[in-house]
Amino acid sequence: MRIIELKETVTASNDRDAETLRGELKQKGTLLINLMASPGAGKTTLLERTIHDLRDRMRIAVMEADVDSDVDAVRIERTGAKAVQAHTDGMCHMDAGMTRRALDALGEDPFDLVVLENVGNLICPAEFDTGAGRCVMLLSVPEGDDKPLKYPLMFTKSDVLIITKTDVAPYFDFDPDACIRRARKLNPDITVFTVSAKTGDGFEEWEDWLIKAVADWKN
Amino acid sequence: MRIIELKETVTASNDRDAETLRGELKQKGTLLINLMASPGAGKTTLLERTIHDLRDRMRIAVMEADVDSDVDAVRIERTGAKAVQAHTDGMCHMDAGMTRRALDALGEDPFDLVVLENVGNLICPAEFDTGAGRCVMLLSVPEGDDKPLKYPLMFTKSDVLIITKTDVAPYFDFDPDACIRRARKLNPDITVFTVSAKTGDGFEEWEDWLIKAVADWKN
Repeated sequence: MRIIELKETVTASNDRDAETLRGELKQKGTLLINLMASPGAGKTTLLERTIHDLRDRMRIAVMEADVDSDVDAVRIERTGAKAVQAHTDGMCHMDAGMTRRALDALGEDPFDLVVLENVGNLICPAEFDTGAGRCVMLLSVPEGDDKPLKYPLMFTKSDVLIITKTDVAPYFDFDPDACIRRARKLNPDITVFTVSAKTGDGFEEWEDWLIKAVADWKN
Repeated sequence: MRIIELKETVTASNDRDAETLRGELKQKGTLLINLMASPGAGKTTLLERTIHDLRDRMRIAVMEADVDSDVDAVRIERTGAKAVQAHTDGMCHMDAGMTRRALDALGEDPFDLVVLENVGNLICPAEFDTGAGRCVMLLSVPEGDDKPLKYPLMFTKSDVLIITKTDVAPYFDFDPDACIRRARKLNPDITVFTVSAKTGDGFEEWEDWLIKAVADWKN
């Protein structure tokens, strides 16, 4: 597994770089998903189960972005999917140029779906377009249902909200209806799934959405 | 309860501003604690219980820093402690100048302990000295024991690590010994407490530390 060391991109316009990258990926028929969440919300665990379920239906690769360590990329490689670990040189987010360099590190193989697991952070990643075709965010039950009030931009920028760790809901005060109502107030079009990677609850709906998103991207 | 709107400080040196502020607070006998953690790690809940237990022993105030909302400051005010809500204008951290303005908003009353509940973020707040006398970080059991590997700077910069939500440990794969070993590898001097705000486990040790820290600061 490859570890690449990235630096913040010095560029006139991250938005323009992101648009260019998105166009190239569209041309190739590769859907890039920008997966964002707080530390420990369950991004890698969601991906492990998703790859396990879909690996015979589509070609999947993962770019793990972290300040340090390679623990997530090692976990992804165990699923059989191709993974690279990107170190962000202390940076709290990925930009479009960093994403391009991480994609280059995946090599020449064609993929239907590439997931960028962004740095664990509910603020900064939402401010930078990476060139992804879709933005997906996770919020875990233990984090609390008030998070849309405190981190509005992430909910505004995401196409999909996945509420994770629903198996532990009995042990936390988490009102899913209140959470979804707050998210929809910021972003009326956001698609919401509730899942437990432990029990598998909700994965069918999420994976159906993903299969359709990959198919739509190729048209 | 007062809400103040802050902007990033434009200054030659945040480190110098922080040193100046720390000196002034030392002079006044006010210990400022910079409390940092991921979103939803339990910062406000820890403070609610701590204030409840210590409010007759010391004069405590809280500065809540968030991108948006006032939910945390409203919760703190219910404990009877003075609170201000600082909005960070989208910023992912507090700097020394922002901290000074939040302190000003607390008014002229003397406090033994002021807690800055920093923006929920395990990366950026660790990069900015706020002028605090002590840095305390939380890591909640649901976030996972691998976090020192992925967010090393926060563990390096903190004087105290409080592992929270230990009541839900049976439902998560969290190895406290592995977590503490990883934290101590980065920061051999870090003081560690494990607490549950639900059951009260571990609060006596944490509050004893806090009482001593406040007393030491006045000497």
